[in-house]
Amino acid sequence: MIRAAIIGASGYTGGELARILSLHPEVELSVATSRNYAGKKMSQVYPHLTGIADIVCEDAPMAELTRRADIFFTAVPHQTAMAIVPELLEAGCKVIDLSADFRIDDPLVYEAWYQAHTAREYLAEAVYGLPEINRHNIAGARLVANPGCYPTSVILPLAPLLKNGLIDPDTIIADSKSGTSGAGRGAQVGTLFCEVTDGFRAYKVGEHRHTPEIEQELAKLAGRQLTISFTPHLVPMSRGILSTIYAKLTRDVDQQELSDLLMSFYQDEKFVRICRPGQFPATQYVRGSNYCDIGCKVDTRTGRVVLVSVIDNLVKGAAGQAVQNMNVVCGFAESLGLATVPLFP
Amino acid sequence: MIRAAIIGASGYTGGELARILSLHPEVELSVATSRNYAGKKMSQVYPHLTGIADIVCEDAPMAELTRRADIFFTAVPHQTAMAIVPELLEAGCKVIDLSADFRIDDPLVYEAWYQAHTAREYLAEAVYGLPEINRHNIAGARLVANPGCYPTSVILPLAPLLKNGLIDPDTIIADSKSGTSGAGRGAQVGTLFCEVTDGFRAYKVGEHRHTPEIEQELAKLAGRQLTISFTPHLVPMSRGILSTIYAKLTRDVDQQELSDLLMSFYQDEKFVRICRPGQFPATQYVRGSNYCDIGCKVDTRTGRVVLVSVIDNLVKGAAGQAVQNMNVVCGFAESLGLATVPLFP
Amino acid sequence: MIRAAIIGASGYTGGELARILSLHPEVELSVATSRNYAGKKMSQVYPHLTGIADIVCEDAPMAELTRRADIFFTAVPHQTAMAIVPELLEAGCKVIDLSADFRIDDPLVYEAWYQAHTAREYLAEAVYGLPEINRHNIAGARLVANPGCYPTSVILPLAPLLKNGLIDPDTIIADSKSGTSGAGRGAQVGTLFCEVTDGFRAYKVGEHRHTPEIEQELAKLAGRQLTISFTPHLVPMSRGILSTIYAKLTRDVDQQELSDLLMSFYQDEKFVRICRPGQFPATQYVRGSNYCDIGCKVDTRTGRVVLVSVIDNLVKGAAGQAVQNMNVVCGFAESLGLATVPLFP
Amino acid sequence: MIRAAIIGASGYTGGELARILSLHPEVELSVATSRNYAGKKMSQVYPHLTGIADIVCEDAPMAELTRRADIFFTAVPHQTAMAIVPELLEAGCKVIDLSADFRIDDPLVYEAWYQAHTAREYLAEAVYGLPEINRHNIAGARLVANPGCYPTSVILPLAPLLKNGLIDPDTIIADSKSGTSGAGRGAQVGTLFCEVTDGFRAYKVGEHRHTPEIEQELAKLAGRQLTISFTPHLVPMSRGILSTIYAKLTRDVDQQELSDLLMSFYQDEKFVRICRPGQFPATQYVRGSNYCDIGCKVDTRTGRVVLVSVIDNLVKGAAGQAVQNMNVVCGFAESLGLATVPLFP
Repeated sequence: MIRAAIIGASGYTGGELARILSLHPEVELSVATSRNYAGKKMSQVYPHLTGIADIVCEDAPMAELTRRADIFFTAVPHQTAMAIVPELLEAGCKVIDLSADFRIDDPLVYEAWYQAHTAREYLAEAVYGLPEINRHNIAGARLVANPGCYPTSVILPLAPLLKNGLIDPDTIIADSKSGTSGAGRGAQVGTLFCEVTDGFRAYKVGEHRHTPEIEQELAKLAGRQLTISFTPHLVPMSRGILSTIYAKLTRDVDQQELSDLLMSFYQDEKFVRICRPGQFPATQYVRGSNYCDIGCKVDTRTGRVVLVSVIDNLVKGAAGQAVQNMNVVCGFAESLGLATVPLFP
Repeated sequence: MIRAAIIGASGYTGGELARILSLHPEVELSVATSRNYAGKKMSQVYPHLTGIADIVCEDAPMAELTRRADIFFTAVPHQTAMAIVPELLEAGCKVIDLSADFRIDDPLVYEAWYQAHTAREYLAEAVYGLPEINRHNIAGARLVANPGCYPTSVILPLAPLLKNGLIDPDTIIADSKSGTSGAGRGAQVGTLFCEVTDGFRAYKVGEHRHTPEIEQELAKLAGRQLTISFTPHLVPMSRGILSTIYAKLTRDVDQQELSDLLMSFYQDEKFVRICRPGQFPATQYVRGSNYCDIGCKVDTRTGRVVLVSVIDNLVKGAAGQAVQNMNVVCGFAESLGLATVPLFP
Repeated sequence: MIRAAIIGASGYTGGELARILSLHPEVELSVATSRNYAGKKMSQVYPHLTGIADIVCEDAPMAELTRRADIFFTAVPHQTAMAIVPELLEAGCKVIDLSADFRIDDPLVYEAWYQAHTAREYLAEAVYGLPEINRHNIAGARLVANPGCYPTSVILPLAPLLKNGLIDPDTIIADSKSGTSGAGRGAQVGTLFCEVTDGFRAYKVGEHRHTPEIEQELAKLAGRQLTISFTPHLVPMSRGILSTIYAKLTRDVDQQELSDLLMSFYQDEKFVRICRPGQFPATQYVRGSNYCDIGCKVDTRTGRVVLVSVIDNLVKGAAGQAVQNMNVVCGFAESLGLATVPLFP
Repeated sequence: MIRAAIIGASGYTGGELARILSLHPEVELSVATSRNYAGKKMSQVYPHLTGIADIVCEDAPMAELTRRADIFFTAVPHQTAMAIVPELLEAGCKVIDLSADFRIDDPLVYEAWYQAHTAREYLAEAVYGLPEINRHNIAGARLVANPGCYPTSVILPLAPLLKNGLIDPDTIIADSKSGTSGAGRGAQVGTLFCEVTDGFRAYKVGEHRHTPEIEQELAKLAGRQLTISFTPHLVPMSRGILSTIYAKLTRDVDQQELSDLLMSFYQDEKFVRICRPGQFPATQYVRGSNYCDIGCKVDTRTGRVVLVSVIDNLVKGAAGQAVQNMNVVCGFAESLGLATVPLFP
């Protein structure tokens, strides 16, 4: 039994971590922090957790908390994470960081898209926590940079194709659509029910901060630099990301060959499900689960491949993947505590 | 390990039974039937169950199926259930019937609201499967009549008050609101997305078939006959029922006394959560779980009590309660396999 | 051509007033105020109004604005309204006040439910602006108190029954359900998309401030004091209110008689549509329009009547009714500029 | 005053035509046909039209109907349209066909994507009814092929760029997202509320029948043949289409230059609104209106342009554009009867 801490427990990712950890047989949630809700139970912040996670949120100094947990999930905004992660590591704790602060290898790239980086010396040891691609590096890590939700949905479907040289890296376009929980639980007009429901919009066109993260990881898979077009959109639903990805094929591939490639690439993965030819995934079929479902289409008319992937942004795109990383870091079975069945309808 | 059959696996309740049973450590799903989807895997009917419930649906005669399962969940429409349940019982199988066919004690009442009853001789032994109220009778039963979704949401909050004579049985009004999954997966114009979304309506005003079921069970609790006003409504959401219930208090009661009564009445129940005074439940906080959450308000201005209860209509209102009943019937821990955490947001 | 001002143009009601007034042939929108958006065009606050209402919002003193408009729609919160309405009236302007400040005749009642009233001397001349009930008083008024959204939906269906003594005034229960736009455009966690969607809740049970307003107007119709039980609920939709109303009948009434009574009572009304026996209204059928649709059911089993009414809370429940009142005040045809057709789906 | 007929009045497009025509000062709706609802009033098929369109639906032979209307809106499925349009034309009626049957110039292309064409002789005279691009040809037409919803959303934003040679025609990718009303009012499991809500999916990836229509019209604008990648998606909302369109720029263009080009290209158009640089449209801002709103982004990192367009699929994507075409055909002001303001929220 290990003791886990959630730093930033009142956000949607924090609440989801509490939900998932409550089902984990080898973890006890020993610390939950929140500035706004200090002194309140998690079940007051999130009434669905009544009787399940009744731990009281606190706003104590990290120095004290490090004695009360073995592993820390930092579910805080970028810039906040880099201010606390070093102290956690130096105290001997493991950290799964759900912010963007340790995902970008090159601090200059980070600073071009975010702001100044004040913990550069930890970047080298931070491991990008996409277990299906990077499992062997995660195992021994003390600092795991949990991937962004959009990047998870874009990298997993492209990995087999890039590794096999099937697509031209300069032609990748990722058109992604996200549920509204990705925008967080902060009070803002833009995510009010009436602003979002029965509507659809693009946002941060060509400017979203997940772009360099995706490019960095795709470049590793392709073996060379690349740039992509990435457009996020807001869907009137709570959970889920669907990414539609386009790229030029480098040679003739038929549908069965492509489907087979994806299936064999991911055949041992518990959390990746490949659709049969002609089938495509939908976000409602992964809701509440750690799955990434992937479909593909060879379009011979245009010489392009179209990939469609879906995840639950709060699970495989955040809290679930974080627990998956924790399992790898701690030597547990990788799917331990993550065997939830998608909730449909 | 017992073997379970789902008769009518392609409806929403059938899919939900498959989801819940896949998480149950003492049950193997050995049979799933569907007329329309015979020959197809459950995961083709419900893609979210891919890798979780890949059993093939069939349309075999009951006589054959009785050899391949120990307990049958009949998730079929009323009238269909009464045609197959006798055969299952006579073959020595246990039955949890999710239809209305065995819920009404008096066949004349049943026939006044439904149609002719062709299995009257089994009514006497059928046990109304609301474990919190009727657990001791369920334990030895071979035929459990799983309650309707609306009745579950109305009976549980009223039970403590009726048993304690706190309200006038002739003044009960239940105004209930249900998510759209209650209307089933059949193709019909009335439940198309565009007909339901961003809208709200009442239906079957004063005529819904759950009325006599509610009245029957409330009468047992009150110790005398009664009639209620019951109005169901359709909410643009998938899952969830909220019932707002009004009744005249028979004497002065203060808020704390009422809250305490509800809390003590249900203090040992795993699946009933009573809100603190001033708090009220919401359907999104029980989504995907077997909970019934209840809040109450003493309105001294009018001398009435207002009760607000919520359930997930597919879980506590159908499949979850059916598995709870199975646990009681089979002597398992009552919450076995039902420890799912509500999914929010 | 008259000049109209919207005070508080950035709220949902303000935006809706701008939409409706843009279609009115006898009105020019000459002033729009907003503290938060001063200096911005209405079309920046509400992009749907681009090319339709490009007036610039301002935050000027009332004293200046009174020279630039003939009639003022005060779409501000209660307490704010009472601080500005006197000045507008004294400058000779007409006022349609959409707040609660001038709806309650008795300042003691107002103060029991709201807070201190600082413009008591204007209460006597304020006219309750429900034209179907009170048209003759509105015609000459300089201050119209535009009804609350819930009260509009409750008073209209009950008026014919109370006027004819068909129901016992002490038995009225109004169970109302509102779309989320009723909560306004302010940034708050409780009305975020993820908090509201796929969920349903009651709120302010037995404590909502529209209660005394409803009771006051029903008492006038009944000819005696009464109290009601009123419970509002939040529906995952933008627009619309549905009220389900219960009361004991004072004598035997059959369905046709009741339907006929409603139809004849409202036969000359352009904005009230009575459903045929057996039919009930739905909010999506009045979306975007000034209609109030009403259905009724005589429940002989319980001796109660059930009334179901629907309105668009932003139109008949706010901005549309305000323009209807303006038409009466200014002597225009009452439906001028309000002939919009409901938008479905 | 002209007399208009709606053939296929019970679909969502038929209902929307009735709504829009009811607001048109120069048109009387004289005929509405429906097989399934013959003998019923439009207001029974669509209760929101009660008191607005109470015409009775009929199922009479075309030969009789041609005497009772001057212009016919054929809102029927492809293949059905080609069976009736010739008779209408030969009887001297004007036809606005909302099906796909007369949109494709080349019958071989039509037959490759649809089925055999049985009215080929009318293809030459059919005019593609996108007024902003093709107004001069529509004016004298007796048969207008009303564009598909997706094509309208893709062609309008691309037209200025293709006409000016700013993009490489071989690099166009259109990723489109549609509300569920586009799937029609037929009863089918796939568009039930529970299947669609809180979910997102792609469909007909690389195979949608609007592809050749888009390619045909873009080719005319580009002055040469081209193929595009087109992927439609289903959004959990009723109305609206958003298309995100990618293409390689043929030369350096800056953001202001591109925005200016779009603004000047559409400066005289009443139904096209171009967003300022940095702004992007949303479907909720055109809901219920005939607008097409367009935003654009020059992405210098990738050398691509990203265009984002939105329409209401039932208005500018169907019934509204059809009435706009009728106005052009009949010599009315092009925006007559179409001055509805978008409904938000």
